[in-house]
Amino acid sequence: MTSISPDLLPEGFRDRLPVQAEAAVRVARAMLDVMASHGYGRVSPAIAEFEASLSARSGGATRNSLLRFTDPVSGHTLALRGDITVQVGRIATTRMADAPRPLRLCYHGQILRLRARQLRPEREITQLGAELIGNDSVAAASEIVTVAVEALESAGVKDITVDFTLPDLVETLAAKALPLSPEKIDAVRSELDMKDAGGLSALGADAYLPLLAATGPFAEAVQKLRAIDAGGALASRIGALEAIAESLGDRATITLDPTERHGFEYQSWFGFTLFAKGYTAALGRGGTYAIARTDGGVEVATGFSLYPDPLIDIVAEKDENRRLFLPKGTLASKAAQMRSEGWITVAALDESDNAQALDCAYVLTNGRAEPI
Amino acid sequence: MTSISPDLLPEGFRDRLPVQAEAAVRVARAMLDVMASHGYGRVSPAIAEFEASLSARSGGATRNSLLRFTDPVSGHTLALRGDITVQVGRIATTRMADAPRPLRLCYHGQILRLRARQLRPEREITQLGAELIGNDSVAAASEIVTVAVEALESAGVKDITVDFTLPDLVETLAAKALPLSPEKIDAVRSELDMKDAGGLSALGADAYLPLLAATGPFAEAVQKLRAIDAGGALASRIGALEAIAESLGDRATITLDPTERHGFEYQSWFGFTLFAKGYTAALGRGGTYAIARTDGGVEVATGFSLYPDPLIDIVAEKDENRRLFLPKGTLASKAAQMRSEGWITVAALDESDNAQALDCAYVLTNGRAEPI
Repeated sequence: MTSISPDLLPEGFRDRLPVQAEAAVRVARAMLDVMASHGYGRVSPAIAEFEASLSARSGGATRNSLLRFTDPVSGHTLALRGDITVQVGRIATTRMADAPRPLRLCYHGQILRLRARQLRPEREITQLGAELIGNDSVAAASEIVTVAVEALESAGVKDITVDFTLPDLVETLAAKALPLSPEKIDAVRSELDMKDAGGLSALGADAYLPLLAATGPFAEAVQKLRAIDAGGALASRIGALEAIAESLGDRATITLDPTERHGFEYQSWFGFTLFAKGYTAALGRGGTYAIARTDGGVEVATGFSLYPDPLIDIVAEKDENRRLFLPKGTLASKAAQMRSEGWITVAALDESDNAQALDCAYVLTNGRAEPI
Repeated sequence: MTSISPDLLPEGFRDRLPVQAEAAVRVARAMLDVMASHGYGRVSPAIAEFEASLSARSGGATRNSLLRFTDPVSGHTLALRGDITVQVGRIATTRMADAPRPLRLCYHGQILRLRARQLRPEREITQLGAELIGNDSVAAASEIVTVAVEALESAGVKDITVDFTLPDLVETLAAKALPLSPEKIDAVRSELDMKDAGGLSALGADAYLPLLAATGPFAEAVQKLRAIDAGGALASRIGALEAIAESLGDRATITLDPTERHGFEYQSWFGFTLFAKGYTAALGRGGTYAIARTDGGVEVATGFSLYPDPLIDIVAEKDENRRLFLPKGTLASKAAQMRSEGWITVAALDESDNAQALDCAYVLTNGRAEPI
């Protein structure tokens, strides 16, 4: 190990300075205000949990990505959260198990990853989102997609694209229209994930090949999907996608990639990913899923998560400069009056303090804010 | 180790449910808005750093209280932050070393402790505060105390008491008025920390006994302190305290406990602790201090930190109920209009959704919000 400068941060961590930090606050406030206006109540889950508990609820998939440590108090291994959605599911099915359904909850916080991913070097990531617990209908999906798009819009994001997917498409077709032996289902899904036509043929699953072509702009792709659906096995799913698309109107471009799973194997019938012009990575995703209840049953849910960090640097711009320099000797009551009128007051502490150096656009002169 | 329920949280961690979580957001927003209105720019330091770096800046005192883990990327030990003030000092003296002084910065975030303390069982704690870097004058101290009190007021805290202290009092007296051999200074400070009159006498430091009595309501306590100050060694300090007290006016009750150090050995000439009626523990503290610069020099600063978690449960009350139930079939445009008028809309997803069960006080009827 080489020695490190005390001024450096570990890879994947960073500080935000004023312009960026204020943009981050503005973006999060705008998004959360949208969720609140649609009736989503705020929850703030703990930043650390028992590792066994977090892993169990994440299906074990994330265990190696969690940042873990031994708790001197309990002797157990704790982990910093890597995803807030599973925590909201825990809250909904334990302390809020008796709250009326549908239960609308939203959240905002930092999540941590043990290692960076290739395309996302950050290890401390902002996550915010909304979960609609107790309903995974078309109406629930329409609301969730709409709130997600509106949240992005509130942060100034334009040219939004929503990519729809049908996470359990292969199971649905295999059970009805395009029979497939159970042991082949996983293999077919893998080939579809890789969009590997040759692999599908080698599996004797040529019937699934047309799915690879049923992608792209929603109207055309859904027609191709309908054409494949000889037995009508997908009719209700297609109708559902069309209803969700219609509810969005022209707020976003809609695309379809029916076999895409985004690595979210836990989703049930509907999933979506959010993109926007100018951003290479997805800004968020969501869909329908099921949560394990404490009584052994399951509860359906629909939700989305946004990862707004990439937005921050782009939307970060200085606010209009309302900084008002108060010369030494300004009365406290006058300063308070100017703040109540919306000024940001910057009080001189001694005679050497300089209005311009302190980034003030105005100076209090004869009791009034005069531009410099 | 006993097996743990996946529904439980480790000791010292907790979830906040809607009413509390929303109160936490409201309190933090109000406090941060006060700091912003006084010209403090927001910074968001990383949640984890190299442990060596965090420890060095904390004077090593906090090493055993930091929550540490080995970083698979760097091979170094990282730690979750246990205090944001030291991070703001790092930012001020590195990336913002060239920003004009005085530099006003504020922050808000979670800090973590490896172990709970006896009086504060929480291990995840909200910290927010403001730092005025480059100035530790009476004017700086007056501004910082005022902003701290105003931040508490903005969160609805009443009957605030500010307890002043003089952290380097013993050194000042020992050097001038009440000579003390250098090897005895630490012992005298310890006895004063414990308010142990017998211990002081045993040390032959009877001259310091009157300091123990110079505590209580500011006006009387400062008179007692002045009476002790035969040689006038404390005259400028007493004058400074009086000026800070005067700047606060009648916004808070002021007390003096000149020898109290609150375990903050890093403070220079002035320190204060914030209390309020109804809260057994302090709500925050602050004072003047010095930050190590990267060029080996030091920079003076004045700041405060608030720990608002105890406030949350007390101020948590439900907002006025503006939840408006939208019957199934309500037009999206109508829903958006109602939200723009300040309503929280709760859309029926199916016919069984019930306005009262979903905590709505109003139902959209003939295009208008009608109370239930």
